[in-house]
Amino acid sequence: MIHSGTETNLGRYLLFLADTVEPGYAKTAFGLRDWAGERCVGELALPAATVTTGLPRLSAREARSQGADALVIGVAAPGGLIPDSWVPALVEALEAGLDIVSGMHIKLAQVAPLRDAAARFGRRLVDLRTPPPNIPVASGVKRSGRRLLTVGTDCALGKKYTALALTKALRARGVDAEFRASGQTGILIAGSGMPIDAVVSDFVAGAAELLSPAAADGHLDVIEGQGSLFHPAYAGVSLGLLHGSQPDMFVVCHDPSRRHILGYPSAPLPSIEAVIAQTVALGRVTNPAIRCVGVALNTSSLDEAAAQAEIATLSARLGLPVADPMRGGEAFERLVDNCNVPDPENT
Amino acid sequence: MIHSGTETNLGRYLLFLADTVEPGYAKTAFGLRDWAGERCVGELALPAATVTTGLPRLSAREARSQGADALVIGVAAPGGLIPDSWVPALVEALEAGLDIVSGMHIKLAQVAPLRDAAARFGRRLVDLRTPPPNIPVASGVKRSGRRLLTVGTDCALGKKYTALALTKALRARGVDAEFRASGQTGILIAGSGMPIDAVVSDFVAGAAELLSPAAADGHLDVIEGQGSLFHPAYAGVSLGLLHGSQPDMFVVCHDPSRRHILGYPSAPLPSIEAVIAQTVALGRVTNPAIRCVGVALNTSSLDEAAAQAEIATLSARLGLPVADPMRGGEAFERLVDNCNVPDPENT
Repeated sequence: MIHSGTETNLGRYLLFLADTVEPGYAKTAFGLRDWAGERCVGELALPAATVTTGLPRLSAREARSQGADALVIGVAAPGGLIPDSWVPALVEALEAGLDIVSGMHIKLAQVAPLRDAAARFGRRLVDLRTPPPNIPVASGVKRSGRRLLTVGTDCALGKKYTALALTKALRARGVDAEFRASGQTGILIAGSGMPIDAVVSDFVAGAAELLSPAAADGHLDVIEGQGSLFHPAYAGVSLGLLHGSQPDMFVVCHDPSRRHILGYPSAPLPSIEAVIAQTVALGRVTNPAIRCVGVALNTSSLDEAAAQAEIATLSARLGLPVADPMRGGEAFERLVDNCNVPDPENT
Repeated sequence: MIHSGTETNLGRYLLFLADTVEPGYAKTAFGLRDWAGERCVGELALPAATVTTGLPRLSAREARSQGADALVIGVAAPGGLIPDSWVPALVEALEAGLDIVSGMHIKLAQVAPLRDAAARFGRRLVDLRTPPPNIPVASGVKRSGRRLLTVGTDCALGKKYTALALTKALRARGVDAEFRASGQTGILIAGSGMPIDAVVSDFVAGAAELLSPAAADGHLDVIEGQGSLFHPAYAGVSLGLLHGSQPDMFVVCHDPSRRHILGYPSAPLPSIEAVIAQTVALGRVTNPAIRCVGVALNTSSLDEAAAQAEIATLSARLGLPVADPMRGGEAFERLVDNCNVPDPENT
């Protein structure tokens, strides 16, 4: 099963929800359920949890007997630490024969009871947010093959889902498309990738170059974006990923219900137009042909009629395909079409 | 003397030039000579070196007897590694009673002969590019006090010298100004700082917030910039530093002889106007009042007449104070004046 943060095999998982009551904190669990459901045997939650993936509730021992290789920490903890209240359940999972997989910045082995239990039971502690060693400084040299990057007006509004949905739709049309994961959940789904926000900042663009290596001309890497160029904390990650990815195309991901940057009430959400303009202006540094091919709208807060109205209005305003990849339909087909037209500079 | 990469005392140094023949690789040695010359007892070079600081050539033993606490690796090695050819001289320095200070990404203790010799002789290996632990994610909350950031059209053209020269001139006028170092050489000069390009990317803006903490209203932090928003490899560092610094003012540093990004022949140098526009557009995320207060021109490739002509032409074109801080003069006085006018939004 999993070897490291950047080269994983495809294991079978028990999703740990801890004591989470806010669905927004359970992105990893939901992402695995939605995109690698066949490898999720169930979920494990502490009594205080109200969030559920809808998968069977299993003990660690039951999950192991049903073929699980590892418990995946499927939620983010406030403060990025592993609370003491989680430890007994995690130790029990190790004792039951499961490895533990984490996408947190803190390393599992820094938690002494986990380190000790893993040694005692011969299990592994896998930290997905551990970049490979010896990442080079970015060369800036244009690579062969085509690339599409999902960018966003904010964090946590659909960049990974959009990249996965586009990849699936493009492959269904026979395009040699590949999803490239830049975050821990995507890495678990894809089995490989680069935890870009855990890379030392001097090497972020270089890490993005490694993530989508030179490829055949017809090949299309669909790269999972991170953060936003307008995010007060994470914009540097977004910009390094943009430069190293050298995308020919990008799709802007947006949630029309979002009023400000998530967790930053004083930071207004940028307009989609501002994100397009900045992504083009900055992306030109490594790919002068960069262009916006559409918008992925996360309309999960709207009913179908309101969603379709929002999509139509926005598409008319921008003169670009707009769709909610999770709703699909003709709008999404048009977006996919536009991700697969030849580079205008090469026609 | 030195405790860590971010909290140093002010030691006395022997500058190690290794076998360097390209002055551009000796930025640390020149920076210390120019801004902390009273703490540099001499230089040590291998026979192949042609670069010199002009300081007395001393053996490690001579330097120690003249009061040096440490040998500072004053040059960058191609590839960022410590070549085997450097090791004997470094071991000899440890034996002579000097610590070794490095600003390279690689840790000194990863070089086994240095680790062993440091243990044997009871000396310290100090890695300036080691960020402090537990850097928080940026809050984005505006801090009290005033801040000025030097930004650039490229790397290695005067952002540190400009910040130091402005700080010195402002203090001479009685302004409560402080230089804030964001790179290894600046940290050695100032005795403290933040090695921003060695911070994990998710925390770069948070690290910049730590570097210039909340201060009295009259206080002015002059923050050393890094890279360029248009640099194919390092722009993410520049953007995180910009967002976390929340500058009220910025000075664009530029070298008129530079034709493309250093080391990236296919990446054209951005115009000063483009850097101003992007810095304002992106800097507004954390400080809507951000404004450009002038340009620092590195005219080291020009004679005095050509330099003055370039400065006058550019100042007329931009409508901003332009000066070479290393030449000083009236143009520089005007630039310093403009760094000390009240924030227009507060008047």
